[in-house]
Amino acid sequence: MTQPAASVSAFKQLQRSLWTRDYTMKILSFDGATVAPERGAAARGEALGALAEERHRLLTGSDAQDLVTALSAARDAGTLDEQTAFELNVFARDQREALAVPAEEEAAWTRLVCEADAVWHRVKPTGDWEAFAPYVDRIVATLKQRAARLNPAADPYDVMLDLYERGISQASVDAFFSEVRASVVPLVRAITERGEQPSLPFRAARGSHDAQMALSRDLMALLGLEMDGAALSETEHPFSEGFAAGDVRVATHIYEDDVLSNVYSVIHEAGHALYEQNVDPAYAYTCLEGGTSMGIHESQSRLMENMVGRSRAFMEPLLELLAKRFPEAYANVTADELYRAANIAQPSLVRLEADELTYPLHIMIRYEVEQALFAGEATAADVPALWQSLTRKYLGLEVPNNTVGCLQDTHWSGGDFGYFPTYALGSAYAAQFVAAMRTDGVAFDAACAAGNLAPINAWLRERIWRWGRAKDADELVRGACGTAFDPGFYCRYLTEKFSALYSL
Amino acid sequence: MTQPAASVSAFKQLQRSLWTRDYTMKILSFDGATVAPERGAAARGEALGALAEERHRLLTGSDAQDLVTALSAARDAGTLDEQTAFELNVFARDQREALAVPAEEEAAWTRLVCEADAVWHRVKPTGDWEAFAPYVDRIVATLKQRAARLNPAADPYDVMLDLYERGISQASVDAFFSEVRASVVPLVRAITERGEQPSLPFRAARGSHDAQMALSRDLMALLGLEMDGAALSETEHPFSEGFAAGDVRVATHIYEDDVLSNVYSVIHEAGHALYEQNVDPAYAYTCLEGGTSMGIHESQSRLMENMVGRSRAFMEPLLELLAKRFPEAYANVTADELYRAANIAQPSLVRLEADELTYPLHIMIRYEVEQALFAGEATAADVPALWQSLTRKYLGLEVPNNTVGCLQDTHWSGGDFGYFPTYALGSAYAAQFVAAMRTDGVAFDAACAAGNLAPINAWLRERIWRWGRAKDADELVRGACGTAFDPGFYCRYLTEKFSALYSL
Repeated sequence: MTQPAASVSAFKQLQRSLWTRDYTMKILSFDGATVAPERGAAARGEALGALAEERHRLLTGSDAQDLVTALSAARDAGTLDEQTAFELNVFARDQREALAVPAEEEAAWTRLVCEADAVWHRVKPTGDWEAFAPYVDRIVATLKQRAARLNPAADPYDVMLDLYERGISQASVDAFFSEVRASVVPLVRAITERGEQPSLPFRAARGSHDAQMALSRDLMALLGLEMDGAALSETEHPFSEGFAAGDVRVATHIYEDDVLSNVYSVIHEAGHALYEQNVDPAYAYTCLEGGTSMGIHESQSRLMENMVGRSRAFMEPLLELLAKRFPEAYANVTADELYRAANIAQPSLVRLEADELTYPLHIMIRYEVEQALFAGEATAADVPALWQSLTRKYLGLEVPNNTVGCLQDTHWSGGDFGYFPTYALGSAYAAQFVAAMRTDGVAFDAACAAGNLAPINAWLRERIWRWGRAKDADELVRGACGTAFDPGFYCRYLTEKFSALYSL
Repeated sequence: MTQPAASVSAFKQLQRSLWTRDYTMKILSFDGATVAPERGAAARGEALGALAEERHRLLTGSDAQDLVTALSAARDAGTLDEQTAFELNVFARDQREALAVPAEEEAAWTRLVCEADAVWHRVKPTGDWEAFAPYVDRIVATLKQRAARLNPAADPYDVMLDLYERGISQASVDAFFSEVRASVVPLVRAITERGEQPSLPFRAARGSHDAQMALSRDLMALLGLEMDGAALSETEHPFSEGFAAGDVRVATHIYEDDVLSNVYSVIHEAGHALYEQNVDPAYAYTCLEGGTSMGIHESQSRLMENMVGRSRAFMEPLLELLAKRFPEAYANVTADELYRAANIAQPSLVRLEADELTYPLHIMIRYEVEQALFAGEATAADVPALWQSLTRKYLGLEVPNNTVGCLQDTHWSGGDFGYFPTYALGSAYAAQFVAAMRTDGVAFDAACAAGNLAPINAWLRERIWRWGRAKDADELVRGACGTAFDPGFYCRYLTEKFSALYSL
């Protein structure tokens, strides 16, 4: 048996080799989404395929398996330092999951989602769900098979949920949505019945491309990103990515007739980027870099976008930046008007354009459709009708076509079933985190009003960001809040905020 | 012994693995030069180092050596197809050169040039050559040692020259420069003695960032780049890079008070990009992708920049684009005025700002300094005085400080000795290529005037571009022109053009 010291050293070296591949794959994908010309896709696909295969081989090879065995024994004997033990936990889980899928099955899966994605791109504008439906059925069948390999005893959709957010299941997500539904559906109904929305013409004011890019950088710095370790790019759909603690990226999309769209995209993505930028530097080049789960990641973006960025207190520094870059449009806008403009709640069909209040209802629709597909209660052919009925039920709207209905999201074409709930969970975590930091004495509103988030960020860095992947969501929430996840904070926050905004 | 078919298949697979590393290293470097934040350098360095090491191992490992042996035998037996034989030639040479330097020596070299580069960046603004000089001496000593390993029988500087441009030597470069000197020095002196330069105030007209970016894309398309396979980025010092035939990049720098600077940077870099974009698609993922030598690459950029872009005929379509994007500044400019503005010849101190006529004189200065260092006739301590005397001799100027003198270029800090001559050779190849295409019936001026370079590009694609690395410079020149390289075309071209421009 290898000596622990030699195993530890080999383990760190192996993680570095994996890191090199993860890093380069992220850069290639980022380049593909921001700069690369259309025809570059073939070469990028070739390189990404080769790197992914090397990654899989390194992660699952017999050397890597022997290392996990040797280090697990050392950990059980208590001779492993804390960080290496964290690394081992995460690495061993990654390895177990990668080993569960045979190489040829993984290759078939890659071809399937690649094809599905191309079909989805083609039919989304025409709304032709029938052409896409066979892929949905095949993807669900493949994922159920995969779930059975990963955990034969569990419900397949529970296995999917757990892949994106450790520890959750349909039981917990059902309970969560049931509580959210009870708060949000009546609120939305009340707002719709009032039928009044504020008139705020400055929302359509024009902002030049260059001025909006400058504003984006202002915002990133204001939120606390260290700008010598962060860059801004442009893309079709805003996203962010962390390559390393010293290199995080935000990609936005500029619409010259919608300045606030870019403002909130950038604040949202900067929240993700803050998380990645503040992972413990000691985790560099290990499997602990990056965020721990989709839900925790989304909690950081939603916290910045909504709890900070759409708070009444933050309107003061935000207005100052807007007035500096767009004096004609914003010089005479008041903070109250901006607050209303940033918080219009109104049922709509497209999730990506949904407001803070109606957003979780969009997630519930997708969650219930996914549940039905995995339970065998529906096939892809039933989805448009199901979508229609759930949209009527939660949003009170009719779906005129599949383009703005069940074809609107890219996730299913990429095989991402079980992912959507993390978007709603993220907002709920965020509300609980803010409540906890207030309890801990953080002057949240004062920090927002001053445009200096240092106290907020210090709390998040200590309790969330620095841990990278070392702790799972549940452990982070308990550590940060002193209690388990509780959706009550989120429901109370939404009820109070939107009751006041709409005088309900 | 392995069967040829199995060896060929393994050889293609090995090239693919090398290609993946080359491609990702290029993307990482491109990202570093265009988007990455400052602090991203550490992670990028880690990844680049790991990839370069893997590349070296793949290229020089015993498997790779055995393949070269097996395939060489197959080639000698006449059982190798033409393309694989090309690949073998290039691969075997790359392997031989990589094997000549032991791994630990290569690592020491990387550290040395890394340190030298940091020192150069620090002292360039202050002009402190003394702080940089020890690195120059160490780099020259290391390169002489490396040259001795590569070819113990040859003069070390000849070995360096050959690395950048196969087949050249001091004998041929001396002859080339002697002919250029005889034509250009008297021309420059005559222009300087006249002392008159045209007054063209539109040259300083302001062009907004966005309009200049749009103009850059107009120009790339006009020159014949397929824009679904080309992208434009921004950087500090303009450059271009080919990642694959379907993915070439141009990076420019926008100065809002100097539109023509960007125009000629983009045309120059588009010339490089056209070469990369038009390599035979059958060479994809092999060692034959990319350009064959620095000199041939530069011939394509200089051909587009000077022979096309600064020709009288091209002023018509260029003016049309300029007037479309900058109507206020360019609506009343004539094609003759633009031609004068694009062709002002005047001795200056900085190579990167030099005009077409005086440019080769800057190269001669560097070449003679490098020769003296490699011959042991000078050490780094002598370089400032040598630079001064050569600048006086060729350009008739005094060097006020080392910032605009011997510290101006980045090449030496990166260990690139023997590289400079390829810049001048490129212009001379370009002149010979244009003469040859005219002889072949290409209506060069008409194509430029029409803003439709298709006939020019068809000639270049067939004779230069498509061959990638399959043929060396000398073979390409002979194939394209029917004769060996002859600097007379270049000298006659410069003499005729600038005599007419300055009525000499």
